[in-house]
Amino acid sequence: MMSDHNKHDDDYFCSPSYSFSDTEKDGLYKAIFSRRDVRSHFLTDKALPDDIVFRILNAAHHAPSVGFSQPWNFIIIKDKSIRRQVKESFLREYRRSISLLEDYDNKNKQRKEKYMSLKLEGIMESALNICVTYDHTRFGPFVLGRTSIAETGVYSVCCAIQNLWLAARAEGIGVGWVSIVSNEDLHKILAIPAHIRPIAYLCLGYVNEFSDKPDLENAGWLPRLEIGKVICYDQWNNNVPIGFTP
Amino acid sequence: MMSDHNKHDDDYFCSPSYSFSDTEKDGLYKAIFSRRDVRSHFLTDKALPDDIVFRILNAAHHAPSVGFSQPWNFIIIKDKSIRRQVKESFLREYRRSISLLEDYDNKNKQRKEKYMSLKLEGIMESALNICVTYDHTRFGPFVLGRTSIAETGVYSVCCAIQNLWLAARAEGIGVGWVSIVSNEDLHKILAIPAHIRPIAYLCLGYVNEFSDKPDLENAGWLPRLEIGKVICYDQWNNNVPIGFTP
Repeated sequence: MMSDHNKHDDDYFCSPSYSFSDTEKDGLYKAIFSRRDVRSHFLTDKALPDDIVFRILNAAHHAPSVGFSQPWNFIIIKDKSIRRQVKESFLREYRRSISLLEDYDNKNKQRKEKYMSLKLEGIMESALNICVTYDHTRFGPFVLGRTSIAETGVYSVCCAIQNLWLAARAEGIGVGWVSIVSNEDLHKILAIPAHIRPIAYLCLGYVNEFSDKPDLENAGWLPRLEIGKVICYDQWNNNVPIGFTP
Repeated sequence: MMSDHNKHDDDYFCSPSYSFSDTEKDGLYKAIFSRRDVRSHFLTDKALPDDIVFRILNAAHHAPSVGFSQPWNFIIIKDKSIRRQVKESFLREYRRSISLLEDYDNKNKQRKEKYMSLKLEGIMESALNICVTYDHTRFGPFVLGRTSIAETGVYSVCCAIQNLWLAARAEGIGVGWVSIVSNEDLHKILAIPAHIRPIAYLCLGYVNEFSDKPDLENAGWLPRLEIGKVICYDQWNNNVPIGFTP
């Protein structure tokens, strides 16, 4: 099938026989397995075309949401002076994180040195930033499915972020999630109303490479867990039965 | 490229030239746009092969996670008596949700009737259920990137859920997220330790169809928002500029 990347969801009509070809499946798994949290590899001088940014945001907008509430907003930030303010917030929070590491882990100098050697954001080097937010008032106050667990609205926004991330990967665009930042600062810098909650601050741009493994795995910060260790049956701590081979 | 779905992430080596073919891109977008929250369309008599369940969980396990903390666990529930207890929790919470709808919306009988006409879960009809949980102690207490916003660990688990959902769709498997359930009940029924937080209770199974649109959109519960309404530039409420055509 030839590709038309301006397709909308309506173009992907589903019928009982609507299945994926092997190559289509491969496309999805390739995006999932080769997606990276990018900090170091942004091409600073290459802009992102608006139509591709839209395509990625449209993928995010088609995430599942509790009660179909679609409680997300996307602030696309190109302005350098605004980004510089976010970078300053990062730097303050980063300094604080070092003191937390010292508190938790004060006998392990090597770990602190490793932490301080890592590049943790690409706010200024990326082509643009996107702040993804959560609006709990959207289509409320009664949101179908949100009556037992209020946080499900936030979960919807996170699903949208993962769609965005995978679509970006397929378009050859790197995404880095800056979580070392103050939401209070983001509220001020981006003029976000009090009732809106920032969920993610993302850096997007073309890259010179996608690493073969996550940066933190490559750096020896933490290993990937064996998947068998995070699966159990019927109840917590019931081990995976023989015959189920991860 | 022929498909081998036992590929691991290592098989998807990334290099600067590592890009997606049009058909591979299509595969990702097809999963994103045709994914549905399934409640009504499960084929009750068709089991899910273990190797495909593993493939889907492996996709979840390759989600991004804050500080590479991989803070998720997956409880695969096939036992019918356990599922029946979860169904009872759903029914109690569902009855409570109706009284909430009456409180919020007491003049709108039509809305209540519509709400009560909707099928909201497939706990017993699906092939199996999966409870996805969050462990804030995993690789802690110092989790890189979680020092400013504690909830980022939960966000990681949600990204894993979205990977799971998309992989299931590509495999022809429907997923329904049951959010009308009590986490306190889940703790008891599934013997989940106190420090572990249930994030999602999912129903998985083969389906007789994937609807062309979300059930709640088809039922006229809510419309899909125009994407232009959820995008702004540089700061909140800066409208999308001319030239950016969603």
